[in-house]
Amino acid sequence: MKSNLKHQSNDPNCKGVEILSIGSELLLGNIVNTNAQWISEELSTLGLNHFRQSTIGDNSERIIKLIKEISLRSNLLITTGGLGPTPDDLTTEAIAKTFNASLSEREYLWDQIKTKLSISGSSFNRSSLKKQCFFPKDAQIINNPRGTAPGMIWEPIKGFTILTFPGVPSEMKEMWKETAVDYIRNKFSDGSIFLSNTLKFSGIGESTISEKIDNLLKLKNPTVAPYANLGEVKLRITARAKNELEARNIINPVKEKLKKEFSKFIFGENNESLSSVLIKELIQREESLVFAESCSGGLLSSSITAIPGSSQVFKGSIISYSNELKQSLLNIPENLIKKFGAVSEEVAETMAINAKEKLNSDWSIAISGIAGPSGGNKEKPVGLVYISIAGPNDHITNIKKMFSSTRNRLEIQRLSVNVCLNNLRLILLSKSK
Amino acid sequence: MKSNLKHQSNDPNCKGVEILSIGSELLLGNIVNTNAQWISEELSTLGLNHFRQSTIGDNSERIIKLIKEISLRSNLLITTGGLGPTPDDLTTEAIAKTFNASLSEREYLWDQIKTKLSISGSSFNRSSLKKQCFFPKDAQIINNPRGTAPGMIWEPIKGFTILTFPGVPSEMKEMWKETAVDYIRNKFSDGSIFLSNTLKFSGIGESTISEKIDNLLKLKNPTVAPYANLGEVKLRITARAKNELEARNIINPVKEKLKKEFSKFIFGENNESLSSVLIKELIQREESLVFAESCSGGLLSSSITAIPGSSQVFKGSIISYSNELKQSLLNIPENLIKKFGAVSEEVAETMAINAKEKLNSDWSIAISGIAGPSGGNKEKPVGLVYISIAGPNDHITNIKKMFSSTRNRLEIQRLSVNVCLNNLRLILLSKSK
Repeated sequence: MKSNLKHQSNDPNCKGVEILSIGSELLLGNIVNTNAQWISEELSTLGLNHFRQSTIGDNSERIIKLIKEISLRSNLLITTGGLGPTPDDLTTEAIAKTFNASLSEREYLWDQIKTKLSISGSSFNRSSLKKQCFFPKDAQIINNPRGTAPGMIWEPIKGFTILTFPGVPSEMKEMWKETAVDYIRNKFSDGSIFLSNTLKFSGIGESTISEKIDNLLKLKNPTVAPYANLGEVKLRITARAKNELEARNIINPVKEKLKKEFSKFIFGENNESLSSVLIKELIQREESLVFAESCSGGLLSSSITAIPGSSQVFKGSIISYSNELKQSLLNIPENLIKKFGAVSEEVAETMAINAKEKLNSDWSIAISGIAGPSGGNKEKPVGLVYISIAGPNDHITNIKKMFSSTRNRLEIQRLSVNVCLNNLRLILLSKSK
Repeated sequence: MKSNLKHQSNDPNCKGVEILSIGSELLLGNIVNTNAQWISEELSTLGLNHFRQSTIGDNSERIIKLIKEISLRSNLLITTGGLGPTPDDLTTEAIAKTFNASLSEREYLWDQIKTKLSISGSSFNRSSLKKQCFFPKDAQIINNPRGTAPGMIWEPIKGFTILTFPGVPSEMKEMWKETAVDYIRNKFSDGSIFLSNTLKFSGIGESTISEKIDNLLKLKNPTVAPYANLGEVKLRITARAKNELEARNIINPVKEKLKKEFSKFIFGENNESLSSVLIKELIQREESLVFAESCSGGLLSSSITAIPGSSQVFKGSIISYSNELKQSLLNIPENLIKKFGAVSEEVAETMAINAKEKLNSDWSIAISGIAGPSGGNKEKPVGLVYISIAGPNDHITNIKKMFSSTRNRLEIQRLSVNVCLNNLRLILLSKSK
């Protein structure tokens, strides 16, 4: 009770956090604001009150007016965008002007930028980057390990702190993880910690999960929140507690309940992906993997090779996009393609068997389908995909998928890849060594 | 009061449009706000001044406070979210309260909702939907052809109009196209249109471009704005004019100037990508393409097969991730790998030549490199990539790239793919048929 009362009055969090996304490209609709979503998720994990987000263009006057407003109602402001070298990049300057502060150069930053450029072998005129070294005198710098534009942590007036980040998502995220998250946790946490554990699901939809755990979604501590992506659902369990042990004790009963209820639909936790889970399992079994891809056109291979260490189990693939290469590289008989069509269970199965043998692997997956937008007909419409998985002891699993007509080419390719990875995962589970 | 609410001038656009996204799921980071991006693009096409966007949670007090603020600085507000049947859906109620208006039932809407439900066979409790029939008396209804929640067009005070939409993107978009766009065009357009033309660059950085066209970036009509992605820069030229012809006449001189200045760095316009431009060129030349990928692990193939129609020129690839498959599938001599290493100009070149021959293609590209995070050493560090392009008449181009140590695995893979595509594009340009 005490903390509740405190929270509404003296607690530094009572005003809450705001996110300000700066960039005319957002107002013109050129890009989707994924930064705001990512930061929101992070703030939510940190347990901070976050009531409002704003987006504004590259206009100094409007940025100044908005930051003034925010400084009156919030105690922490996270900005993204406008830290680059172009005349459009106005964030640091505008923030300084808002509070009548001047900017001064940090010479060591200029040395750092020059070093970064010489390593990358960039040959362009460096003078435009110089503005990235100017900050208010008492601002703390947020190092940017992936780019030239640093951010800052600045408290221009008592009780109001601003953190600035570049708009490039990979740079912003790295800076957040390396510097910002600890700073925010230390300065704005009320002593309790927030711990999250995310369970990841495949082969089941968000609404099916939500319906089954209606009661869990209403919990206050831990909270359970669903997030849906293409072909994947996440449930995040977040506990507020005095320490990590207490938090784990709050999370674990809910986690165990979910694991019992959904068992094999859960493929992993936190940063795991279908690819990483599969690679881990194959490494343990000392079994290798190859692919024969047609309609997925390399996406299955690249989803595996995106994972560090994949070379321990993944040997390679044949992308037989043309029927000619299906014949010459995978020895698919011409008459099999003529009789059943390249998009058929028969051809997919032969692709899987032959790839496994020719590429000398324990497991192989073959995909043949119609990703569209053209190439479909009434019998074999866009969205029809055949998948075949071949494994040790003449194991064969054949899967036929018919994706909805509302799915576009890329979605059909991505969903097909998910089905491949998830099904091999389930087969390995059923054949545990 | 009335005069206070009057606009600063007679131009109805002087205050501009705002977008307000309502929903706690946005503040929690559960979903990305694609609605704001979509509406922004629409507003931009309509040529309306759009200076600011906000996001707020499902909290009546905060919604009311924010809408009051917006009503003082804008003349058109577009809201999304909060029109559903749950207790969390507060938008219509909150808007009415903001302007001290009451809500009354539109009986015909209730009949419509009941009809919609009986058609879809939905079995859930209908009483909760009743609130979707309540609107301020003088509000005009926006029909929702894809769902049960209608929106409204309401001018609660002179010079300030609110349009409400559900948060479900497909419903919002359909309602926008069917009702809102005409209303907005008629009521808020000053007769001018906005037309944009985007030029896309590869092989040159954003800051280098910006420095060279400092004067163009300051133009008022057309405006020129740079956007940077990994390995790609876009310049968007936007003209405001009375009609399309006039807009093109404003854009074209700037576009020609840019084309002259940057010539081969510009690979395409608007929705074109390096992949789509390359495919188009190869289709025209009736030449085919294959890949031999090692460190890019399928990403080069999938970037080509992401494009509809790529099967006209792309035959397939060999992903020879292991040295064993480099030997067995691409006939790379074992002693070549021993002598120079798998990551070497010699091996990349042999991969390209052999893939071209074995996969029977006009062009082939081979990549071998170290994407990291491990596998590098002092002589061959992470980020070192060899690319070889083989073509008709024994054409060979060898490229060595050393990507910055700040780049992660995925970025090295993606940048390598960009270098491949852009270099083949440049080779084709120099060998125009």
